[in-house]
Amino acid sequence: MTTKMSTLPPLPPSIPAFLSAYLPPSSSSATPTPSPSPVPLPTRPFVTLTYATSLDSHLSLSAGVQTLLSGSATKALTHYLRTQHSAILIGASTAIADDPGLNSRLPGTPLARQPRPVVLDPQFRWRIARDARVLRTAGRGEGKAPFVFVSAAAGGEVEADERVRLLEEAGGRVVRIDAPPPWSWKTVLETIAALGLDSVMVEGGGKVINGLLRRENRGFVDSVVVTVAPVYLGTGGVNVCPPRVVETQAAVRFTDVLWTVLGNDVVMAARPDLS
Amino acid sequence: MTTKMSTLPPLPPSIPAFLSAYLPPSSSSATPTPSPSPVPLPTRPFVTLTYATSLDSHLSLSAGVQTLLSGSATKALTHYLRTQHSAILIGASTAIADDPGLNSRLPGTPLARQPRPVVLDPQFRWRIARDARVLRTAGRGEGKAPFVFVSAAAGGEVEADERVRLLEEAGGRVVRIDAPPPWSWKTVLETIAALGLDSVMVEGGGKVINGLLRRENRGFVDSVVVTVAPVYLGTGGVNVCPPRVVETQAAVRFTDVLWTVLGNDVVMAARPDLS
Repeated sequence: MTTKMSTLPPLPPSIPAFLSAYLPPSSSSATPTPSPSPVPLPTRPFVTLTYATSLDSHLSLSAGVQTLLSGSATKALTHYLRTQHSAILIGASTAIADDPGLNSRLPGTPLARQPRPVVLDPQFRWRIARDARVLRTAGRGEGKAPFVFVSAAAGGEVEADERVRLLEEAGGRVVRIDAPPPWSWKTVLETIAALGLDSVMVEGGGKVINGLLRRENRGFVDSVVVTVAPVYLGTGGVNVCPPRVVETQAAVRFTDVLWTVLGNDVVMAARPDLS
Repeated sequence: MTTKMSTLPPLPPSIPAFLSAYLPPSSSSATPTPSPSPVPLPTRPFVTLTYATSLDSHLSLSAGVQTLLSGSATKALTHYLRTQHSAILIGASTAIADDPGLNSRLPGTPLARQPRPVVLDPQFRWRIARDARVLRTAGRGEGKAPFVFVSAAAGGEVEADERVRLLEEAGGRVVRIDAPPPWSWKTVLETIAALGLDSVMVEGGGKVINGLLRRENRGFVDSVVVTVAPVYLGTGGVNVCPPRVVETQAAVRFTDVLWTVLGNDVVMAARPDLS
């Protein structure tokens, strides 16, 4: 049920059109054109929230267990989506559990179209080492090294940390955030924008996803792309199920809902209904 | 968010073909041909499990609250499915909460194609009265009166119950089951077959659905038709989430998975994987 690396099938030709209305505006140009004059950076990036669940809305069998849910065509969609964003964001628990590559494995993706991995890791728990998949991938020029967001409170120790050097050697860095954790999404997204990243694909895990679906954060989310796989993981898994604000009303509604069938999975593209 | 009666749109023309491989064998003939010689009844009916959930696998906002999830095209699919089964089964809680019609409202459905409602009600809790929607529907010739399965232990009182007369007047009846509740699905399905009903569409609620998805009952299920609506009901709803048998393995897998997009919903037709 878990896998580290599988062959990516060709992108189904219908996918770019299916996703086109849900992509960051800049992603329409194949390679970004340098502006002749400095353009003010946006204060927040375009945010796409994307993940795969079972029919019973589980991301994985249990916390820390990578669970392969989506089929190969859906995987190709995810890797295409990664080429359309400046950054890809996950929480530290997912980085630790999955040892992910955080790149696009779509054949022929130039490094300029690879997203910058951003890992939210206030306590700097991620024991990233030289053999971490994301660093090996960056070393081969097939992806970028991560920006790891850590709390300034973890400061003194971070400076001398071997991991900082490792990240910097690979082209990544540790980004210290002054605000004490838990960070607001406003803080996280403004930090991402300040780093020159104008779009971010948020991939997980459960805490990150449920957090962004909460009423107070939903306004930050521009697009949602959810894959549903035909399986019940069953009681005890990591669940996507946001809290309700009004007990008698649905927690999250969507607008501009579009579905596509990909192999045994379905994929929904939509926008949160903020009304 | 709740509704009693809405106009049913025309059946999308793609639906019969989409469902054809998942229907009871007998449903292919428009009207059943009487056999010239007695044919032994099957000991168990063909079982289709069908329901609509939110993205977070909820049937309703809370127990006893009818929650409209699926769009109108998906509703038409459900009403078509009802014409393809001899019986439609729900638990007593759903009968009490929803006051359902339990018929097919597809225009032009002859009474012979209306399913027989079966309500599982061991304690005979359902206070069915003359104005119950299912009886009014039957009175108009637009559906059949229900068979209410009650425990033989509720026996003496049932005989003198006004509700028995009401059901019988309408063409329904109380069916007493000797086995003490909770009944096994084997008992329930054999009782249905013994009543001459060779296919049953199981529609809810939560207890019934989760029960049939359990490992020990899954072999009774021939087809599963699940609608997923693009909404998160959020924490606190009635959940479809079967228990796992092996902690590290998905609770229920499916084979012969087919999806279709209907308006803002998706519908999965599949068979439980019994391997």
